[in-house]
Amino acid sequence: MTATAAELAAMARARELGLAVLGTTSPNPAVGAVLLAADGTPVGEGATAPPGGLHAEVQALAQAGERARGGTAVVTLEPCAHTGRTGPCAEALVAAGVARVVVAVPEPTQLAGGGAARLRAVGVDVELGVEQQAAEEGALGAWLTGVREGRPAVVWKVAGTLDGRVAAADGSSRWVTGPEARAAVHRLRATCDAVVVGSGTALTDDPQLTVRDADGRDAPRQPLRVVLDRRGRLPATARVLDDAAPTLISAAPGPRELLDELFARDVRRVLLEGGPTLAAAFLRAGLVDEVVVHLAPKLLGAGAPLVDDLGITGIGDALTLRVTGLTRLGGDVEIRLRPTRHTGVRRVADSHGATGGG
Amino acid sequence: MTATAAELAAMARARELGLAVLGTTSPNPAVGAVLLAADGTPVGEGATAPPGGLHAEVQALAQAGERARGGTAVVTLEPCAHTGRTGPCAEALVAAGVARVVVAVPEPTQLAGGGAARLRAVGVDVELGVEQQAAEEGALGAWLTGVREGRPAVVWKVAGTLDGRVAAADGSSRWVTGPEARAAVHRLRATCDAVVVGSGTALTDDPQLTVRDADGRDAPRQPLRVVLDRRGRLPATARVLDDAAPTLISAAPGPRELLDELFARDVRRVLLEGGPTLAAAFLRAGLVDEVVVHLAPKLLGAGAPLVDDLGITGIGDALTLRVTGLTRLGGDVEIRLRPTRHTGVRRVADSHGATGGG
Repeated sequence: MTATAAELAAMARARELGLAVLGTTSPNPAVGAVLLAADGTPVGEGATAPPGGLHAEVQALAQAGERARGGTAVVTLEPCAHTGRTGPCAEALVAAGVARVVVAVPEPTQLAGGGAARLRAVGVDVELGVEQQAAEEGALGAWLTGVREGRPAVVWKVAGTLDGRVAAADGSSRWVTGPEARAAVHRLRATCDAVVVGSGTALTDDPQLTVRDADGRDAPRQPLRVVLDRRGRLPATARVLDDAAPTLISAAPGPRELLDELFARDVRRVLLEGGPTLAAAFLRAGLVDEVVVHLAPKLLGAGAPLVDDLGITGIGDALTLRVTGLTRLGGDVEIRLRPTRHTGVRRVADSHGATGGG
Repeated sequence: MTATAAELAAMARARELGLAVLGTTSPNPAVGAVLLAADGTPVGEGATAPPGGLHAEVQALAQAGERARGGTAVVTLEPCAHTGRTGPCAEALVAAGVARVVVAVPEPTQLAGGGAARLRAVGVDVELGVEQQAAEEGALGAWLTGVREGRPAVVWKVAGTLDGRVAAADGSSRWVTGPEARAAVHRLRATCDAVVVGSGTALTDDPQLTVRDADGRDAPRQPLRVVLDRRGRLPATARVLDDAAPTLISAAPGPRELLDELFARDVRRVLLEGGPTLAAAFLRAGLVDEVVVHLAPKLLGAGAPLVDDLGITGIGDALTLRVTGLTRLGGDVEIRLRPTRHTGVRRVADSHGATGGG
């Protein structure tokens, strides 16, 4: 048996629920869950709470109450079988009398694995791999990158002109894009555990790097602000050092070392907002998983480029990506992409797409 | 009385009909017309035939026959009142017993003007200015630029990477974009009377610059191929000199002079396909009316830029455009834009948008 139309609709909703908590659950995965009663009616929803809080399935079960009996749980990630800070979700589903569990992504870790087997052992029908790629490229992507590569996923966000300039010849860059695009950056920051710039950007633009809401107020939860500053150039007066959010000044020698440092602090999703030099360093190392380009309908003809030298000489060696999203943001254009072939690193296009490792 | 829903639907169709013949009517405007019977049913369609052929209204009348009596003619441009190579359309409408004429753009020339007045004089109801801007930015744009500025309209088409490179560091650029984008370029060429490159592009890429159909065959009608070659650098073996289409080698000292030369040859719409130098020359002169960017989801980090120096130093002086179209072409992205503020030339954003001069 494959998934029913009601289950697929519930899975789409579960992915949305996961995305809504992305950036608040690390180091845990941002899971979404929907409970359907025996007749297919949605009777409960849940998403991973911040660490120490309830898992998605348990919240959905609590909403559903007795209506879960004989029903179906639709979850983006295989329910865990182990007792961590919370009890095992597989047991909770069994206790509630759920008859069927539909899962997008099988649990990839030994520690939490075995949920499906445990459920099947007591007669629960379990369907694995339902719209798996969509879930892997959604809210679970960053966490999966952590599991598979032992590092946070990296989202590179860049705002430039049509002709690929991030600043004019005189260095001025405020504001390349309009208010809608800038608001989108704040929403994007909110989905990340850390925001990274180099000391150059911190010195030139002096950004605060906080998440502000639509009214311009600092959001209650703030990602870690990170400045890669190997030479100790950051002045004590930099805005990124204010008390609006925590800040880490790192002297890591390279992108991978910086990511290791952040991973150890439970960071699973990093927003790279630095300039062309930092972007090139991450791209050359094959350490960019998603790209968000905000393109302003402007031409400058000169000025700093989107990205510095990547060591590419011929068009056949270009770093290639695929477009995953295209939308207008006010007068600007947002293009979302994922690399399919990095330069300087072995990485097969199709397996990247199929496993969605970030 | 304003336009009815049926008339607005007919006007949208008339705009489509005009666009379908764009590139085949110069120096005449690419007009579209739809005839509605007295009950509002469409009973005839027409578009400007090549010079010497029938005008849009006359074709639509011929299709409609007796059903035109008491009906409405919906036309993108005010019917002409003068006898040129064809008889005046206003008279033909009167003779057919049309009761009402709905027009998008009032005739801007003295020569052909007076059609609305002539129609009203014999009791026909005439509505002018219905969805005028859409018609002006559509098939009539290039012709209107000719009327208002005495030059052809210029469409700049450029294919580049996300980071604004049209070629890699070693000069290689085939193919930046994929087959769908390249096919779109052929369709775009077919809407133009001339395709312009500089001698640099002719030497480096040796393009044929013809219009090929979906099967790769040369289309029956070909725009004039134009190479701006002031120093006589073009070799006799260049593909642009083959017999697939007519070719003009121009030694015009600048963009405006080149456009004057082309205007005198009845060219009303030019596709600029040159490299960064030629593009910058046209942009600096304020002589680009539309921009079609084909953006490949690639990063190069080095190589020739989309456009050379524009004399802009600060972000506040950027050449600004507005996005008029955003679509995917296979794996690539097409962005269509119109300049709203050129640099180095006085040109007011709003009046440009409102008059749609190209």
